[in-house]
Amino acid sequence: MSKGEATRQAILARAFEVATIEGLQGLSIGRLAEELGLSKSGLFRHFGSKEALQVAVIEEAGRLFVQDTLLPALRAARGEPRVRALFHRWIEWGNRPGGCFFIAAVAELDDRTGPARDALVRAQNAWIDEIALAVRIAKDEGHFRDDLDPHQFAFELYSLMLGSHLYGRFLRDPAVATRTRRAFDSLIGSARAPDRKRA
Amino acid sequence: MSKGEATRQAILARAFEVATIEGLQGLSIGRLAEELGLSKSGLFRHFGSKEALQVAVIEEAGRLFVQDTLLPALRAARGEPRVRALFHRWIEWGNRPGGCFFIAAVAELDDRTGPARDALVRAQNAWIDEIALAVRIAKDEGHFRDDLDPHQFAFELYSLMLGSHLYGRFLRDPAVATRTRRAFDSLIGSARAPDRKRA
Repeated sequence: MSKGEATRQAILARAFEVATIEGLQGLSIGRLAEELGLSKSGLFRHFGSKEALQVAVIEEAGRLFVQDTLLPALRAARGEPRVRALFHRWIEWGNRPGGCFFIAAVAELDDRTGPARDALVRAQNAWIDEIALAVRIAKDEGHFRDDLDPHQFAFELYSLMLGSHLYGRFLRDPAVATRTRRAFDSLIGSARAPDRKRA
Repeated sequence: MSKGEATRQAILARAFEVATIEGLQGLSIGRLAEELGLSKSGLFRHFGSKEALQVAVIEEAGRLFVQDTLLPALRAARGEPRVRALFHRWIEWGNRPGGCFFIAAVAELDDRTGPARDALVRAQNAWIDEIALAVRIAKDEGHFRDDLDPHQFAFELYSLMLGSHLYGRFLRDPAVATRTRRAFDSLIGSARAPDRKRA
């Protein structure tokens, strides 16, 4: 990694932390420069604008998510075990301090237009496609039923993640882990191939 | 309504609109005063502080939600029809310009502490209790199975609302209505009493 790349990476790591806690709107090139002991013009050289910085932070969040959530889950066996691993890693991601970066960013950007929103939509759709792919593999393995719609499953799984995040982080429901597990088991149960209903 | 109450109500109506589009952080007493042609000191007399204004706006949102979502749904017949009506009115609420006030407010306040967060938790829990009550009634009516946990159902219904809101408003998935209906029918199907499985 060149010195320039290392600096860029250090800026992004700090910017991701700030954005996770305070939102993308809380990112300021001036403040980041001060915290990292860099010049404002140096930060502008790396990112050009506040919006370009937001796009870079969203892409950095996507990279971290792949590294911490997707890749470890892909080590699980193909089929239902991998679908379970994806969900469990995803819930862990949402339990980090500040909660799920993506859920917070969606709430900030949903009424806006522009490259930051577009980058966030791309990141979300890439993840949804990964879930759907894992579901297709589970069908190929004979774990899930042939007529299961992978994108319908992904939608219901995503819904469950959002509910779990709300009940855990916001409502602080002590039963959130139990509720999430019961709903997940029910979703998995309805997806299973007939000969695996009792698996 | 006294003149003071009418003024307070006008302030709240405008504050709710602003908060729905720009978030609770976007509420400023100075800006509201300017837009409504009132003095800043007049607004302070009504609300005392920015935080008191936020609490009042959250309570106003709760009042509007009851008026537009809960009360019309309660006109549906007790049991499954009422649970369906609650969900459909809720989805309509989330389709208003600016989306669901509560989902946006949760993302803003989840890392904070204080009376605004507390008011939002109260509003959310009051709604969850209404769903659970409608589910208990559906059990009493024999529509839903005896061993159904009303708060588990409410959690899964809330999850589905959140997923629908994300796919509709943020991802703009053209299939969102179909996906939501399929997931909702599946949830209702799993809740039904055995002798009503084909209802």
